[in-house]
Amino acid sequence: MRESELLRRIYERTRIQAAKWPQVVVGPGDDCAVVRCGNGLGGDADVTLITVDQLVEGRHFTANTPVDLIARKAVARSISDVAAMGGSPRWALATGLLPDGYLHAAALTDSLHRWGEHWGAPMVGGDIAMGAPGTPLVLTVTVGGVAHPARGPVLRSGARAGDEVWVTGAFGGSLSKDGTGGGQHLTFEPRVREGVWLCETLGARLHAMIDVSDGLGRDAGRVASASGLRIEIDAALVPRSAGVGDVLSALGDGEDYELCFTIEAGAMGERRAAQGTPLTRIGRVVAGSGCLASIAGKQLDIAESGWDHGSSGAITDEPRPA
Amino acid sequence: MRESELLRRIYERTRIQAAKWPQVVVGPGDDCAVVRCGNGLGGDADVTLITVDQLVEGRHFTANTPVDLIARKAVARSISDVAAMGGSPRWALATGLLPDGYLHAAALTDSLHRWGEHWGAPMVGGDIAMGAPGTPLVLTVTVGGVAHPARGPVLRSGARAGDEVWVTGAFGGSLSKDGTGGGQHLTFEPRVREGVWLCETLGARLHAMIDVSDGLGRDAGRVASASGLRIEIDAALVPRSAGVGDVLSALGDGEDYELCFTIEAGAMGERRAAQGTPLTRIGRVVAGSGCLASIAGKQLDIAESGWDHGSSGAITDEPRPA
Repeated sequence: MRESELLRRIYERTRIQAAKWPQVVVGPGDDCAVVRCGNGLGGDADVTLITVDQLVEGRHFTANTPVDLIARKAVARSISDVAAMGGSPRWALATGLLPDGYLHAAALTDSLHRWGEHWGAPMVGGDIAMGAPGTPLVLTVTVGGVAHPARGPVLRSGARAGDEVWVTGAFGGSLSKDGTGGGQHLTFEPRVREGVWLCETLGARLHAMIDVSDGLGRDAGRVASASGLRIEIDAALVPRSAGVGDVLSALGDGEDYELCFTIEAGAMGERRAAQGTPLTRIGRVVAGSGCLASIAGKQLDIAESGWDHGSSGAITDEPRPA
Repeated sequence: MRESELLRRIYERTRIQAAKWPQVVVGPGDDCAVVRCGNGLGGDADVTLITVDQLVEGRHFTANTPVDLIARKAVARSISDVAAMGGSPRWALATGLLPDGYLHAAALTDSLHRWGEHWGAPMVGGDIAMGAPGTPLVLTVTVGGVAHPARGPVLRSGARAGDEVWVTGAFGGSLSKDGTGGGQHLTFEPRVREGVWLCETLGARLHAMIDVSDGLGRDAGRVASASGLRIEIDAALVPRSAGVGDVLSALGDGEDYELCFTIEAGAMGERRAAQGTPLTRIGRVVAGSGCLASIAGKQLDIAESGWDHGSSGAITDEPRPA
């Protein structure tokens, strides 16, 4: 079973289950789950955003990646999920399964703690286990956060027909420097401040948001699917990272960790940056389904392009993390 | 570095860090972390209990363990951490790293969801990744819960000199049936109802609590250490599971997942059961340090006995999960 199929199955089943439980505001399938806080006295805005991701050696980073960058990526991926809801990270938990005889345990945990604090989410707990010979290094990071107090959590499902589709930053090539100790996928800055700024600035006119981990086409397609609408992207408008010539690379590479969001048409006014990060309009939301990109006069459905963790169906020849 | 040393180091560092952050009520080192909820309007009792544990094939279960029992144990261990604070589970997240070609992904996720719901913690999110050949099955389960609304979270550090030390249930032999598809370590019932009952019944006279995962001596020793006191156990009073003849097995085997707690002397009155589970007084809290057991007239320090994940320093010959 492809990972995407398995996840779809899980989302569907758990959506039904979660609906039975009053403490669950948003179940699986968005960037974060949204759960009601403790005794419920804090009101409707008093929710916890919660997400977990795992980082596996040989899958999400190569064995020669510096320890600090491994820890950074493990933390940053979950922080980015909180950013994608317009939220602010508050605390984190980490687990580490360490290869037999692993020599960098102390440095790794130091880095996990430092990066958690860096993004406002001190490590409050975790678990370490030593693996048998042959076990890869596996990290998981759970991050809890708070929603924007006025806007509340920004979901994938809030897009409306007529919305404009915008992105932060630039796309493509995030994996091409992998193995050198660099690479955007190891050093990206989760767009927390930008997400909060969007909530502050646009309020209820900010309709839907996602962070782009698996490719712009695939992730915009998730917003379209969750909202029951179609997203049309003008590929020529998509900002490309330095050195990225191929528009398909910008649409499909993934691991950009930029925000893609839909807003009420015209709500952005003349603004073209959030906290110093460029903002670019790349498309619109219309009736229909899927995510179409107009490329050199042709329309391609790119909702299934990009990186399906577990498949080899990527549309580009960019190297994946080995 | 032994796992216990590494953890001590992590706890010490993160205790200092966590103290800087107002949202952190209790940082690493207890059964759960305690974090303040969203906007803080819910008051002091409005906290989230949060814990994560990982379960590794070849370490915590054998390859021939039925899928449903693997999932059950993964969920139950984290649920037990919430029980150890007197809390109630509310939601869960799970990650799975699946061996290459793993055939039971759907059954595994079904079971994870079912067991989460069983204990009141529906799965609200998670992550699945496929491992390279040779990767073991690795699960992590994060559980969030609420504290008892009147008593608040019960910490390890609350024991007072003069307290009585009590336990739920019986001890020893939890691993001896491993590999048969049974075994107490796979089928234990987390003591959630008992923990809540203790909070209800004893209120502020319930001083400290832990769940016994690594052995009664080791875990009672953690309560003693966190409280800056000594615990003395009368080994003859420790209830043994059926078939356990060796008192050292009862003190050191681990994976019992019973509660060990300290209370104001006399607070229990004539009560000897919580929600149908036997309660037994096994010792007392005094000035000093460590955890001593009187065995056949001799006093042994058993705070370092039991299962140190990552060491071979166990005091018994009971088989560990291979």
